[in-house]
Amino acid sequence: MSKSVRDYIRSIVDFPHEGIIFRDVTTLFADARGFRMAIDQLLTPYAGMRIDKVVGLEARGFIIGGAVAHQLSTGFVPIRKKGKLPGTVISEAYQLEYGEAVMEIHDDALAAGERVLIVDDLLATGGTAGAGITLCRRLGAEVVGCAFIIDLPELGGRRLLEAMDMPVHVLCEFEGA
Amino acid sequence: MSKSVRDYIRSIVDFPHEGIIFRDVTTLFADARGFRMAIDQLLTPYAGMRIDKVVGLEARGFIIGGAVAHQLSTGFVPIRKKGKLPGTVISEAYQLEYGEAVMEIHDDALAAGERVLIVDDLLATGGTAGAGITLCRRLGAEVVGCAFIIDLPELGGRRLLEAMDMPVHVLCEFEGA
Repeated sequence: MSKSVRDYIRSIVDFPHEGIIFRDVTTLFADARGFRMAIDQLLTPYAGMRIDKVVGLEARGFIIGGAVAHQLSTGFVPIRKKGKLPGTVISEAYQLEYGEAVMEIHDDALAAGERVLIVDDLLATGGTAGAGITLCRRLGAEVVGCAFIIDLPELGGRRLLEAMDMPVHVLCEFEGA
Repeated sequence: MSKSVRDYIRSIVDFPHEGIIFRDVTTLFADARGFRMAIDQLLTPYAGMRIDKVVGLEARGFIIGGAVAHQLSTGFVPIRKKGKLPGTVISEAYQLEYGEAVMEIHDDALAAGERVLIVDDLLATGGTAGAGITLCRRLGAEVVGCAFIIDLPELGGRRLLEAMDMPVHVLCEFEGA
């Protein structure tokens, strides 16, 4: 039987902390067939829809976003951690387990009414993606969906994003945080 | 006259420090035509060559690398700053203006004899790219070229890489650091 996207993902025990099983997409991206299959499957729900820009979340979302924007022939817009973007930005804080983090987008990166697809590798608590949706909406863009390679359903990210009226698309699930 | 890749790049004064003019490629990437033109032009010298993997340097090189790997139908391999990759890595230090930095690659990301193209947005001193070439070569891969959107010729990066027997391809140049 041929390999699925999930089969290409490597699990690494105790990274970045003891007790965590890290789901490593670099083994998926490194494989020509796996990478193309992942990009194709990420886009399946959006066939025929108008998408003006692809937004990728730092840093692995940049790899996916570059490929997805290329496949769709759209522009690509990065959402980055605080202090990394050189132009004028708007910022959005979100909760971490301890403390908070801030994501930023250039304030002229999206125009009002533009239709945007947000992509990242992993949906965990949904904090980063939720901040990303809010940033796009604050610029007047319409986020048509959020697409992820992996969902960790126990962490509740899908519920959080769906409570923001956001359609969520994931390619596979893993148990455990 | 139609816009060139260079025309899409925005210059931001005093980022990240006073006296620096930052060349901002996000305005290039955000434009559908600009982004596609940049990817096409990055690949022009490699037409007809066998390339097995595209290697992107963190973080803007991930955007370019995702698109280039997709266009070439190859796998994508990230080179990241120290501590970001979850698997077993090899490391390479390089000099900064003050102190040094370390780049890493998974030790199983490239196989001996694989032909690799390294991409990033900006060639400045060549420190990061030089470390990237060394990492790929230490895994036994053959780096067929390094492609950048921007060269800052005053900083000497091209000379450094060419002294490593590396063909360098850039789309445009800017004066000043």
